Amino acid sequence: MKHFITSADTDSVPQLVQKALDVKRNPRRYDQLGRYKTLGLLFFNPSLRTRLSTQKAAQNLGMSVMVMNFDKDGWQLETEEGIVMNGGNAEHVKEAAAVIGQYCDIVGLRTFARLQDAQADYEEKVIHQFRQYAGVPVVSLESEIRHPLQSLTDLLTIEYHRAKAKLSGRPKVVLSWAPHIKALPQAVANSFLEWTALMDYEVMLTHPTGAELSPEFTQGVTIEYDQKKALKGADFVYIKNWSSFSNYGQVIQAPDWKITQEKMALTNRAKLMHCLPVRRNLVIDDAVLDSAQSIVIEQAGNRETAAQTVLIELLKYLQTQDEPSDLAQSLIL
Amino acid sequence: MKHFITSADTDSVPQLVQKALDVKRNPRRYDQLGRYKTLGLLFFNPSLRTRLSTQKAAQNLGMSVMVMNFDKDGWQLETEEGIVMNGGNAEHVKEAAAVIGQYCDIVGLRTFARLQDAQADYEEKVIHQFRQYAGVPVVSLESEIRHPLQSLTDLLTIEYHRAKAKLSGRPKVVLSWAPHIKALPQAVANSFLEWTALMDYEVMLTHPTGAELSPEFTQGVTIEYDQKKALKGADFVYIKNWSSFSNYGQVIQAPDWKITQEKMALTNRAKLMHCLPVRRNLVIDDAVLDSAQSIVIEQAGNRETAAQTVLIELLKYLQTQDEPSDLAQSLIL
Amino acid sequence: MKHFITSADTDSVPQLVQKALDVKRNPRRYDQLGRYKTLGLLFFNPSLRTRLSTQKAAQNLGMSVMVMNFDKDGWQLETEEGIVMNGGNAEHVKEAAAVIGQYCDIVGLRTFARLQDAQADYEEKVIHQFRQYAGVPVVSLESEIRHPLQSLTDLLTIEYHRAKAKLSGRPKVVLSWAPHIKALPQAVANSFLEWTALMDYEVMLTHPTGAELSPEFTQGVTIEYDQKKALKGADFVYIKNWSSFSNYGQVIQAPDWKITQEKMALTNRAKLMHCLPVRRNLVIDDAVLDSAQSIVIEQAGNRETAAQTVLIELLKYLQTQDEPSDLAQSLIL
Repeated sequence: MKHFITSADTDSVPQLVQKALDVKRNPRRYDQLGRYKTLGLLFFNPSLRTRLSTQKAAQNLGMSVMVMNFDKDGWQLETEEGIVMNGGNAEHVKEAAAVIGQYCDIVGLRTFARLQDAQADYEEKVIHQFRQYAGVPVVSLESEIRHPLQSLTDLLTIEYHRAKAKLSGRPKVVLSWAPHIKALPQAVANSFLEWTALMDYEVMLTHPTGAELSPEFTQGVTIEYDQKKALKGADFVYIKNWSSFSNYGQVIQAPDWKITQEKMALTNRAKLMHCLPVRRNLVIDDAVLDSAQSIVIEQAGNRETAAQTVLIELLKYLQTQDEPSDLAQSLIL
Repeated sequence: MKHFITSADTDSVPQLVQKALDVKRNPRRYDQLGRYKTLGLLFFNPSLRTRLSTQKAAQNLGMSVMVMNFDKDGWQLETEEGIVMNGGNAEHVKEAAAVIGQYCDIVGLRTFARLQDAQADYEEKVIHQFRQYAGVPVVSLESEIRHPLQSLTDLLTIEYHRAKAKLSGRPKVVLSWAPHIKALPQAVANSFLEWTALMDYEVMLTHPTGAELSPEFTQGVTIEYDQKKALKGADFVYIKNWSSFSNYGQVIQAPDWKITQEKMALTNRAKLMHCLPVRRNLVIDDAVLDSAQSIVIEQAGNRETAAQTVLIELLKYLQTQDEPSDLAQSLIL
Repeated sequence: MKHFITSADTDSVPQLVQKALDVKRNPRRYDQLGRYKTLGLLFFNPSLRTRLSTQKAAQNLGMSVMVMNFDKDGWQLETEEGIVMNGGNAEHVKEAAAVIGQYCDIVGLRTFARLQDAQADYEEKVIHQFRQYAGVPVVSLESEIRHPLQSLTDLLTIEYHRAKAKLSGRPKVVLSWAPHIKALPQAVANSFLEWTALMDYEVMLTHPTGAELSPEFTQGVTIEYDQKKALKGADFVYIKNWSSFSNYGQVIQAPDWKITQEKMALTNRAKLMHCLPVRRNLVIDDAVLDSAQSIVIEQAGNRETAAQTVLIELLKYLQTQDEPSDLAQSLIL
């Protein structure tokens, strides 16, 4: 694995999930693998879970970590080709990425959808330019439209509970939209569909009319507009709000879609999942979040395992690369 | 010791001070104790001494440290129970604390008094909810009304100088209010009284009328409204401004309370202490701060020792806890 | 070397450059030298390259690093002597420096020119007060008027390429002003002249009328007001914008000074250098930056080597100092 931006960067999603389960069992197995290696984490947006879990994962592997809040500690980056840079952006991503690649062996990047221009967001320009110009592996810490570390976490959490509960057969996994007062990105939902499609699950998507996701991610997915019908018999219920794709970035009003105990009673004693942060009693009722069915905290804990798994794969990739630079230099000098 | 929020969290304040003196003598004794352990430092407010001294202390013990400026790198936390979260707070402290507890073995937290509502401040809600929900030891890096790391530092500094000067008998320790132009919290003064009450000191509190602290902290403390009388024969003079408790958060005007050489001459060649930052010539004159009587820099240096002592106690507590999770997981999987 | 603020802090600039070439060849040679030592990095202004490269350099030496964005995580510092601090500055640099020196073995500091008052900027007050009061070695991460880590990087880059290209004789090194839309400091240009003057180079400075630098830095330097004449036969071309010194802080309008392929064709196939960030097509054309002549990314990579070299020298200095404090304390206690 050379980068970690979409599921296409993995050799096999199910195998990566198995590796994550191994890491969860033996978290200290590779505690020297990252020695002398540095992870740079660049945040263009606020972050709690991703920030802390990825740092922790790197430290578990003996890596050094450098964290930078790019928007606050640095400046705005230009992404257009050929432009005369006489505006607000002080540096082109070409230079920024290449320079950061000089100091870091792996670079993690968080960007957010601005939710104003679907095309601009769906191009994921910054992270793709980092992939092109950094010269080192790039890890998405959530881009405008994908959140692969979250999805690996989600599959790890599902597989762990399937094994624990000795569930046989294909589990029914329901992704349900829920209400929110702010316009949120579609990244978590998009990635969840992208990744679960590669597992042997019965996946069902449920949301109000108007909350349809991009066809790029829903192709082949069963959509059920009746939330209660969808929840029936579910083994795992994944709750997430997102703003409109068709009416791009608009908040969708549907307060009835809040998750309640009554709705959870329709499921097959499903485990409740959410990527957090969650607004209590707006998205999910206290009674559900505080019940034994909720595994959101454990799920958040698995973020560390997912990040560690990805870093292990990338560090192993780096080991396969020659590092003749020191030798070459000593011949020259 | 399971947490470090108030003096009641310690088994014995005098014994903890003795342990701090030991750490000061042998700072590298436990340099592997924190191996594989991670300290999370969450700042809801600016900090210099606490930020750097606590990081340094953790590194002295071989711990990994993750620092997060919660207000800038993250978002606002909700502390109310049962509320419908449709306002400005994006995450409930229940989730935030529990999640951070997934990645950190010990969590440090700095919050500040808002100085608008005494009852709200004196509830110290955020840190108590972290204690309740984080699932790991919580260290106060200053809460709304207490600053226990500062108090442990202060006692360590006093005891060190008592031994150095071979002072016999109970030292006279005076806490004096001093002027300031801004409304400052009462935390340092409150904690100083809470902690010195547990030592064999003659403690005297002096401040202008109107600067009375909360009775919760002044019960049994001798209060002298004449600053010069109070300073007479003092062995240690602790200077600190605080805003009004009764007229909550109001700035108290009393410029005459500034500390001058003349006032210091009344003491028993007392050592001058202050938690810093200090506004020169407003709170304390240059001539006093730059004199040999001032030990404010050494006192600040002792912050590292105090933090290291607290972390050692908490790490030792963690060692007594079973960690069967890896084993349990490998049996399940 | 006790500090690293100006070239006068070095024993010999050419020797330091040789040491940097050694570090580039053997980057892991001193990977334990910084054990138990802590580097504090204080940023009063945004930074990308300096922030990351200096952290990385310290980690290469086994040092712990603490990074603080002083302006955001802390507060404003007072630099005036004897002032009554009843304004916006919450702490005097005397205390701040001395306290930070308690926790850090070496302190790095970035300040920026405000470009409003030449005399104030050219006093470099904050860094000189840190040198005076911190009690530990101080490293400039760029001050108002100098950027010595950049200059050491620049000389290392030039010497590396001289050796690689087997250039004999004195290389012609041209520092050329280039256009910009914002008022930038003179620090990089000043330091470049200060440091190249100590090497056996033919240095030429070229800029439009009105862009004269401070005589303090241009004394003895050949100035050529015709950019094309200056570039003729150059081996190394260093591009940098700066604002006016005489009309202090004013933006100089001279769009014709942009670096183009045509201009580069006048040189002796010169290597193109720039400290970055660079605004493409405003300062330097894409065609030049993306050509083989541009070594700006490698130059940025050398920032790590330069910082590592400086830290090695300072750590070696610290080793020569006695550290009797632990012993002294155990005798006292």
